[in-house]
Amino acid sequence: MQIAIALFEGFTALDAVGPYEVLNRIAGAEAVFVGERRGPVRTDTGFLGLVADAGLDEVAGPDVVVVPGGPGQVAHMQGSAVVDWIRSVDEATTWTTSVCTGSLLLGAAGLLRGRRATSHWLALDQLPGLGATPATDRVVFDGKYVTAAGVSSGIDMALRLVERHVGAESAMAIQLGIEYDPEPPFQSGSPAKAPKDLVATLTALKPFILGG
Amino acid sequence: MQIAIALFEGFTALDAVGPYEVLNRIAGAEAVFVGERRGPVRTDTGFLGLVADAGLDEVAGPDVVVVPGGPGQVAHMQGSAVVDWIRSVDEATTWTTSVCTGSLLLGAAGLLRGRRATSHWLALDQLPGLGATPATDRVVFDGKYVTAAGVSSGIDMALRLVERHVGAESAMAIQLGIEYDPEPPFQSGSPAKAPKDLVATLTALKPFILGG
Repeated sequence: MQIAIALFEGFTALDAVGPYEVLNRIAGAEAVFVGERRGPVRTDTGFLGLVADAGLDEVAGPDVVVVPGGPGQVAHMQGSAVVDWIRSVDEATTWTTSVCTGSLLLGAAGLLRGRRATSHWLALDQLPGLGATPATDRVVFDGKYVTAAGVSSGIDMALRLVERHVGAESAMAIQLGIEYDPEPPFQSGSPAKAPKDLVATLTALKPFILGG
Repeated sequence: MQIAIALFEGFTALDAVGPYEVLNRIAGAEAVFVGERRGPVRTDTGFLGLVADAGLDEVAGPDVVVVPGGPGQVAHMQGSAVVDWIRSVDEATTWTTSVCTGSLLLGAAGLLRGRRATSHWLALDQLPGLGATPATDRVVFDGKYVTAAGVSSGIDMALRLVERHVGAESAMAIQLGIEYDPEPPFQSGSPAKAPKDLVATLTALKPFILGG
């Protein structure tokens, strides 16, 4: 079972690493980080590079594809080699997944038309323009398409995917292995729970947070 | 404010990337990934490389140090350049932190003697031998030393650190920015909550999980 995680300049590290840390623990799974070409790909902050071990043309038939988000996503919305690759490999995937604004790239590839999907809460309003119906669930399954909310939600998405693909026992074992018993310090992890003035502050910073 | 994240061969990616994703969002923060030498450092699975942008000798006075865990930690317990570096930079840090079995490296550097600390639940029994009192809390503060439980706990640790170092408002804003409103699918994220037979299974796999 091959799990391909797409990297592009300006992606958000946790979007990619959260699902990787869960999915690579499936027995027999092989994870591969894929970039436009082999070599380091820098994250949105510029402080970190993850190594793409394969170029797009080297990974043609992954079972699972994970598309992270991040401000770098914006540059791909009118089409790019990454978007073409997502559309191409999707033809044979078992699961096509995204975290955060990665769902906008699935949308740009034309994969979300008529589907329910989610994204970072600040980006939900971009889904209808891509033919998708926005949902505020943390993880949304629509057929083989699995989209997750912002940044940290990829961990939940991946555990749900393990549950569906392998079984609850495996997902529980992985959850215990990564000691995923979260204790978020505040009730501020979603716009529905956070104080209204904080939501307003981040909404005003939307172009800075999402890129553009 | 410089945040140095230590990398070594065989570390666990999420241990490092969870705190990075939170701490780099502190206003004015600069994160730097530090390895024995510059260049890619491979994770425990072999499926991923993170780029160390600096060698140990290039980062002498970070404000915050983050030490991840992972099976690769075992090779450093009798002393290594990484452990020497941790001991050296600790003299001037504001916060010295770890995730998962990274706390065993803090212990190997002699920094946990007489302190309360935590680690991956399978590694708690190694703390007394390093002079520390094991605690099962998800995040343990003892002076400037902050240790976190297994793998995924670094996100909680980092948010708590932002709360203490900058303030609750900043921590809440970061939590909302990364949409950290976790929905763990099962009650299996800690040995206290998981089914007993699952805890026994993973305990039997301890050498495989922790390395050795």
